[in-house]
Amino acid sequence: MHRLLEEVFYPAFSNPALDARHDGAEQDVGGERLAFTTDSYVVRPLFFPGGSIGELAVYGTVNDLAMCGARPLALSAAFILEEGLPIETLRRVVEAMREAAGRARVPLVTGDTKVVDKGKGDGLYVNTSGIGRIETPLRIGPASVRAGDAVLLSGDVGNHGIAVLSVREGLEFGGPVSSDAAPLWEPVEALLASGAEVHCLRDLTRGGLASAVNEIASAGRIGIRLEEGKIPVEGTVAGACEILGLDPLYVANEGRFVAFVPANQAQAALGVMRRFQACSKATIAGRVVDKHPETVVLETAIGGSRVLDLLSGEQMPRIC
Amino acid sequence: MHRLLEEVFYPAFSNPALDARHDGAEQDVGGERLAFTTDSYVVRPLFFPGGSIGELAVYGTVNDLAMCGARPLALSAAFILEEGLPIETLRRVVEAMREAAGRARVPLVTGDTKVVDKGKGDGLYVNTSGIGRIETPLRIGPASVRAGDAVLLSGDVGNHGIAVLSVREGLEFGGPVSSDAAPLWEPVEALLASGAEVHCLRDLTRGGLASAVNEIASAGRIGIRLEEGKIPVEGTVAGACEILGLDPLYVANEGRFVAFVPANQAQAALGVMRRFQACSKATIAGRVVDKHPETVVLETAIGGSRVLDLLSGEQMPRIC
Repeated sequence: MHRLLEEVFYPAFSNPALDARHDGAEQDVGGERLAFTTDSYVVRPLFFPGGSIGELAVYGTVNDLAMCGARPLALSAAFILEEGLPIETLRRVVEAMREAAGRARVPLVTGDTKVVDKGKGDGLYVNTSGIGRIETPLRIGPASVRAGDAVLLSGDVGNHGIAVLSVREGLEFGGPVSSDAAPLWEPVEALLASGAEVHCLRDLTRGGLASAVNEIASAGRIGIRLEEGKIPVEGTVAGACEILGLDPLYVANEGRFVAFVPANQAQAALGVMRRFQACSKATIAGRVVDKHPETVVLETAIGGSRVLDLLSGEQMPRIC
Repeated sequence: MHRLLEEVFYPAFSNPALDARHDGAEQDVGGERLAFTTDSYVVRPLFFPGGSIGELAVYGTVNDLAMCGARPLALSAAFILEEGLPIETLRRVVEAMREAAGRARVPLVTGDTKVVDKGKGDGLYVNTSGIGRIETPLRIGPASVRAGDAVLLSGDVGNHGIAVLSVREGLEFGGPVSSDAAPLWEPVEALLASGAEVHCLRDLTRGGLASAVNEIASAGRIGIRLEEGKIPVEGTVAGACEILGLDPLYVANEGRFVAFVPANQAQAALGVMRRFQACSKATIAGRVVDKHPETVVLETAIGGSRVLDLLSGEQMPRIC
C-alpha cells in the first residue's frame, strides 16, 4: 500500500495539498481554511462487537477532519451494494450511520448508490468524504513536530482490530472485546480551546499506533521514542494478540489518536483529554528526539529498545 | 434505485441540503456558497471507446459541481482495488484521471486506497467527491424552474451508453461509437457569465435524458414537454438502439446536460453553449408548461405525444 502510494498515486497527482501527506487536504475558501478528506470502508464482517461499517464510515471521516484540527461541517455517503444484499442489512447500516452522525453532530448532506453484480462486491462498501473548517491558527501536521514534543496517546490500543477478528474468525478470548470506534472531534476541540500548542494529530487506524507514529516520523523527518510501559493495552486484547501472534502496537483502532504538544504542556493537555470518555486512559507515551530521524524506537518494559518498523504488508486486511 | 433512495436513504438522513434533491449539496462557509458532491464509479469494462473509468470519475464529479453552478475547486479520489488487479491497469486509470483533472483544471487533493479479496470486487472501483464554489447569485435547482422556461439540450444523446455496451458485449454497429465523456464547467461558466438567468442545470447520466428531465419535473413539481424532432441522436447510436431494443432517450451520457432558462433568453444561451465543442449540437429541445405537473411528455416526430416515464429498473447496469 505504501509502495502503491509512493509509486503510482503521488507522482501522478503531485500538488502541495497531497504532498503534505496529511489525513486531509487543506483548501482556502472565502478566507476560511477548509479541510477535505475521503475514505472507503470495506470492513468484513459488516457488524462486529461495538459497531458496524456504518459507525466506522462516519467516525473515520469525522476523525480524519478532527486530525486536521477541523470542525466537521458535512459528510457525503456513497454506497456500492452487491446484488442480493438484504434490504434489512442496508437499513441497519444506514441507521447506524444516522445515529453516528447525530453523535458526531455532522449532517450527511449528499450521497450516491451503485449496484454491482453478485460476486463483484461483498455485501456493501461505503465511501464517506467530509469537509470541515479549521478554526485554529495552528498549522497542525507532521511538519510542525519538533524535538522535545511529547507524544500523547488517547487510550488503549488494538481493541477495534481484535473485536473485528474475533467475530470474523469465530474466536473467543478471555472475555468480550469491543471496538473502540468513536468520534474524536470533541476532545480535539477541547485541546485546541485549552490553548495547547498542538503540533500534530493522527488517529490510529489500519496499521495501529506503530504505523501512525512511523508516518509522522517519516513525513516530519523526526525521531520518535515510545515507552512500551506507557502504552495501555487491555488485558483481553493483549491475551488475544499473544494467541494470534499479533503485535498490539500494529493492531487497528478507530477511536484513538496521538497528539504532539510541547513537553511542558503535556500534563495540562492530558488533563483536558481525560475529561472525555474516549480518552479516559490517555497517557504520555513518548517523545520526539533530535536523533535517528524518520525512525521510531520503542523503549521496552524490560529496559531494552528496538526499532518499530513500518510493516511491509497488511497485518489484518479489511479491518476498516 | 429510486425506491431505495426514497425509502431508505432520504428518511434516515433528512436535512435541507439532501432534501433539495440536487446533484450536490450546498454549504455556506465563510460567506461563500460551497457545493459538495460524491459519486462512485463501477463501469464495466474499465476501458471503452472514448474513455475509461478514470475520465468518468473526474468528469462525473466535476459535472455534478458544474450543475450546481459551482466552479470545481478540488477532488478526492478513493480506490477499491480487487486483489490481483494488474498494476499496469491501475497505472492506466490513474494516468487517465491525471489527464482528465488537467483538462478540467481541478486538482486531486486527497485520496484513499483499499484492497479487497479476489472475487469481492471487479478490478477496481473509484469514488470521487468534489467541492466547488458557487459564484453566481442565482439559485440553480429544480425549485427555480418556471412555466415558460426553455429546455436547452447540449448535444446528441446516448453515445456513452452505446460505446460501453459495444465493447462490453463485443457488438459492432454501423460504425464506431465513442463516449461523449467531457467536463462541462466551461460551457456552464460561459452561460453564467453571459448573464443568462439559468434556473436549473442537470447532466444526463445513468438514466439518460428522460430520467434527468423526469427528476426535475418531479422535484420542481412542473410539467415538461420535449420535442422528439429536436433531440439529436447520432445515426449509429440510433441504429444500435434499434437493434438492441433500447430507447436512446434513456441511454446514458457523460458529457451532456440540460439547462432551463426563460424562453426569451433561449436563443442567446444556445449561441453561448455552441461555442464549446462538447455543446456544438445544442438545441432547444422542449419547454416547461403549466400543465401536467411532475410529468414529462414527448411530442413525437409524427405529431403524437406520449408520457416519458421514469424507468422502474435500470436499463443498463454499471454504465458509469
